[in-house]
Order: sequence, then C-alpha cells, then structure tokens
Amino acid sequence: MERRQFIRNALSVATVAATGKLVGGENTTGSRRAYRRIACEEGFLISEVVAANEGLGDIGIPLITRNGPAAFLAELLCDIGDGRIAAMERDGIDMQLLMLSAPGLQVFDRDTAIGLAREVNDQVSEACRRHPNRFAALAAMAPQAPERAARELERAVTQLGLKGAIINSHTGGRYLDDPEFVPIFEALQDLRVPLYLHPRDPVPGIAQYMSNAVVDGAAWAYAVEVGTHALRLIGSGIFDRYPDVQIVIGHMGEGLPFWLPRIDNRYQAALRFANSKLELLPSEYVHRNFHITTSGMNYMAPLELSMEVLGIDRLLYASDYPFEKQGEAVAAVEAMPLSFEQKQALFEANAVRVFAL
Amino acid sequence: MERRQFIRNALSVATVAATGKLVGGENTTGSRRAYRRIACEEGFLISEVVAANEGLGDIGIPLITRNGPAAFLAELLCDIGDGRIAAMERDGIDMQLLMLSAPGLQVFDRDTAIGLAREVNDQVSEACRRHPNRFAALAAMAPQAPERAARELERAVTQLGLKGAIINSHTGGRYLDDPEFVPIFEALQDLRVPLYLHPRDPVPGIAQYMSNAVVDGAAWAYAVEVGTHALRLIGSGIFDRYPDVQIVIGHMGEGLPFWLPRIDNRYQAALRFANSKLELLPSEYVHRNFHITTSGMNYMAPLELSMEVLGIDRLLYASDYPFEKQGEAVAAVEAMPLSFEQKQALFEANAVRVFAL
Repeated sequence: MERRQFIRNALSVATVAATGKLVGGENTTGSRRAYRRIACEEGFLISEVVAANEGLGDIGIPLITRNGPAAFLAELLCDIGDGRIAAMERDGIDMQLLMLSAPGLQVFDRDTAIGLAREVNDQVSEACRRHPNRFAALAAMAPQAPERAARELERAVTQLGLKGAIINSHTGGRYLDDPEFVPIFEALQDLRVPLYLHPRDPVPGIAQYMSNAVVDGAAWAYAVEVGTHALRLIGSGIFDRYPDVQIVIGHMGEGLPFWLPRIDNRYQAALRFANSKLELLPSEYVHRNFHITTSGMNYMAPLELSMEVLGIDRLLYASDYPFEKQGEAVAAVEAMPLSFEQKQALFEANAVRVFAL
Repeated sequence: MERRQFIRNALSVATVAATGKLVGGENTTGSRRAYRRIACEEGFLISEVVAANEGLGDIGIPLITRNGPAAFLAELLCDIGDGRIAAMERDGIDMQLLMLSAPGLQVFDRDTAIGLAREVNDQVSEACRRHPNRFAALAAMAPQAPERAARELERAVTQLGLKGAIINSHTGGRYLDDPEFVPIFEALQDLRVPLYLHPRDPVPGIAQYMSNAVVDGAAWAYAVEVGTHALRLIGSGIFDRYPDVQIVIGHMGEGLPFWLPRIDNRYQAALRFANSKLELLPSEYVHRNFHITTSGMNYMAPLELSMEVLGIDRLLYASDYPFEKQGEAVAAVEAMPLSFEQKQALFEANAVRVFAL
C-alpha cells in the first residue's frame, strides 16, 4: 500500500470511530452496517412558530425564542435543510423523523394554532420532499379545535405524505381522555397512523410542585406528565373503542416498562372497591397500543429492562436532536452488547414498520 | 424409614414448599437457610387511629375505617400480636419492621396528631418488647408540629427503642424540603436513624389528575408523589446540609433507579440556564443518602435493574403487608436467580445494618 493510500484509510477509520458514521458501507468495526439509523423523536420549529412564541411574552413556561440563553436552540430547530443534514452526517444518523417541538401549537389561541398547523405541515412536508431519504415528519395539529385537528391530520397524511401526528401532552390542562378529543382518535384509527405523545411543561396542578432543577422539565416532570397522560388514556377505556390506535412515547416509555406488573396488580386490587372495568389489563394495552423510543435514555440498564418487558419490536431509536447530543447517543447504543438483529430492529426496521417510512 | 415418619417428613416438606417457611433450619430446597427474612415496609394501625380516621368523615381521600369494603384491612392492620405472627409464620417472614399506615397522623389537627404519635409509639414499642425477634418499628410523628415531632422521635428512639421515623409523604400539601421541617432533619442527623418516606394520596394539585384506577393510588400516583418528594429533597440541597441522613423509599425506589442517568444529564443541562448548584450530582445523593425496598415490586426485571444501578447493598426486602400478599412476595424473590449472598443481603443483612436491628 502506498503511503498516501494508507493515510487516507487511517483517517477514514478514525472519522468512523469518532462519529459512528457509515463510510463506504463499513462501520466502526469494519463489518458492513446493513441498517440505516433512523431517529424517531427529532425536534424542529419554523420561524413563524418562533415568532408566535415571542409574541406570547412570558407566560410562565419555557418557550423557544431567538432571545435569551436558548437562542442557539431556535437556530438549530429552524434548520430543516443543509445544516441539519450536515449534523446528521457528522453524527451517523441517516434519517430523522421530524416533529414540532414542545409545547407546539397548544399554547396559542384556537385560530392562531389552526393557521400555524397548516403552515408547519406545508413547510415540513416540503423539506421531506426535498430530502426524502433524510427526513420524514409527523403532522402538527391544534388539539384545542379537535374537528379541525382531525381534518388537518387527514390532509397532512393523505396529501402531504406525513407519517402520523404529534401532540405535546396536555392542551389547556386537559388530557386526551377528555371526550372532546374523540375526533382525533377517530382520525388516527381511520388513517391508520400513530400518535406521538410528547412531553411539555406539565399541567398546572403538577407544574407547581416541580420547583427545582432536579424535578423540573426533562429531569423528572416530563415523565410524570406523559406517564400520567398515557396511563389515563389506558384507564379511560379509549383503546377498547379504538383498538388499532398506536401511541408512541419517548424517553424509554416515560418509565412505564419499570412499572407494568405493579400497575396490573394494583389495578386488579382496586377493582375490589371500584367499578371501572377494562377489556384488558393495563399492561396489555401497553403491549398492544404503545411503542416506545429511546430518546434521552440511551442507557443500557433501562433499555435492557424495556426489551425484556416489551420485546425489541416495541422499541425505536431516537436521539432527541437538538436537545441531546446525537452523536453520543448513537455511539452509546452502538457500543451496547446488542445483537445485529436487535440493532437493526431498534435503529431501522421498527421505525419503518410503525411509521410506514 | 417407617411409614409414619415418611408421611411426617413429606407433609413437612410440602408445608415448606407452599410457604417458604423455615422448618428445622432447612428451606424449600433442602439446603440450610442461613438468613432471616426481614420485611421492611409492613403496615399497622392502632384502634385509636382508626377511630380518629372515622371521626374525620369523608375528606375525599382513602382512610382505613371499620366500615366499608376495606374493613378487613383495619382488622389486619390493628393486629400487632398473635394473628400477625401466625401470618408471618405461614408466609415465611421472620421479622416485620412495622410502620404506621398511610396517611398516618398527617391528616389530623396538630394537637390530635401529637397525642396520637405518643400513643402509637407506646403501643408499638410494647409489641416489639413482647416479640423482640418478630417486630421492630419506626416512630410515628406529627410533622405538622416539627419541633414536637423531633422530640417525639428522640423519645421513641432513645427511650422506646424504635429504629427510625416514618413520614407518609406530604403534610398539608407541603414537602419536607420546606424550611419549617428542618428540626426533623436535625433530629435524624443527631440520632443517626433513617427516615422511611412512604406514599400517601398525592398533594392536591397532583391528586386531581389521578382520575381512574390505572393512575390512582398505588398503581401510579404513589410513585409520582414519593418520587417527586424524594427528588425535591435532593434538589433542595438538604443533603449538603445533613449529609448523614438516610432516607428509605419503597416500591423499588419509586422508579428512581430507572431514571438516574437521565436526571443527572438533564440537571446538568439545566445548569446552563439556572443557578441551582448542588455539591453532588442528583444520582450521587441517591447512592449516598437513599436505600430502597422491594415493597409491591417483587419482580425480577426492576430488581435486576436496581441491583445494577444502586448495588445490592442499597436494597431491602419488603412485603407491604397486609396490602400485598406476603407469601407470594417471599416465594417470588426466593424463586429469583439470585446468589445466596444476594438473598442474604436483601432479606436480612441490609435491614440489620440500616435499621440497627
């Protein structure tokens, strides 16, 4: 081998080792990587939403704006083009499933939210058309107008090619088990697309107790918010009425895999004193109607527990870009003692199946 | 072997197999069981507290009374004598660490609670004196009177031989990171005894969302309540001021072992925007200042995760008698693929060390 060729090879291997990026069809170990890495909870915004956030002023919850210490996030979130693709190449992500960042449109008045939903979906679907191998996206909605949300979801899926819906947990303090949101479940069932139930600042009653940096936000409060939301949906019996609806929750299932046998056990004990009766046990709905992603939880112990409890087919990889370090998340999962088949399912096959990519 | 002797042996083995109870120094597998089984979150009440519960009437939260469908629980809880010991023998439990059942004295007015705390501690310490190999107990307190609670804890530990304190989460909607509760931390640090932080119905702001049998009570709400409480304590910095205080939380650490790396990660990210600065990372306080018990969570997957994250020395066995089935819990843990040393630590050695039994 000539010296020049040797150096080129050595540099190439070093790049791969640092980033996990596929180069020339080979991965860090030199073996062929026969799966794409698809990341399933990747945030974005459009400038119109950022401007609308700024127009709200201080409403006591975190909002992405171009002012203040989180300005860099606004910039990263609003790039659904070349800059983001460069970051994906750097970090070894082949495709991102884009979803409007929290709290989404749920903080705006009804008409503003309806208008922004169309704008968001038009712009993100254009990005997907421009980069079909790089981006897929979920539809933003205005749940505060449930019928309109259902129609926008239908338009986004059937006309724009979006892959499902994103709702950032509560809407004005109300969860999706409220009967007013039934049109959204009708649309999800009819269109056969999943709903990603993503965190936001918790309902006001809960938020008041999240008073320091160890309980607030993504450290703990988000899991309380979405875990509660998901379990309320199960307990409401909505999956008896809409048995085909698939919910995706991030952050390793917001803790639910840890709790399933206890939830079943205590639910059954509570039936001695209450009438609520579901067709299935709570855990059976999780097994049937939920998938979970690894966003922000790319750690072996909770992943192992979740694989054992739910099976690998219910788990999808996510980076939570740009809030988490995408390259570190990829490297962490690639370093785990998982089989090729498990990595293939986690990084690609399950996402392709669940979101019809 | 004579037929009579054979039948006696066979019956004895059958009894052991069904109950896990130690008979003649041997356990179900025929090998010597060289550890006692100590259960560390076992509920009790005294009739005076049940009567006081009944006197409150319907205050919108679950209370143990002699009326209604939970009357059998009142009877089981008030037996801290022969009936309970018979159940322990049946189920293979050698010793129970007794603690006043939720919501304890925290629902009563200040003076009622102070008076009942003395009565509870006098009666339970008498039961412990009568059955020193069967019972140990934690001290009830009236946290709504923090100075009096601290003095009652001192009396209970130094004069009555109780082993620590029990507080059923919030007191009037306030958590223990409120500065008013500092006298309790002073006493815990001075006396070198642990505090068991046990669930009750959540703070009102959270309780309003726990609206069906899948989210309410022990299924989910209790973990939200005590998990939030424990993390608020950590975030408040109280363990920087009282570094020797040990907190024990049940239900496999109320989910915290699942979340520790994410909590650290998001806490560190939040420091970019906030000033709160602890001496240690959140997880380091859990490793230093917390022990967890298996109450209601005697399942292999979460136990395995917790052992991996915290180490076996931080885990203690609990049955949660009489709310859970004590015999099934023992059998479940005995059937787990744990080493003799792990079972010995979980069932006996850690409890002896943490509670100075």
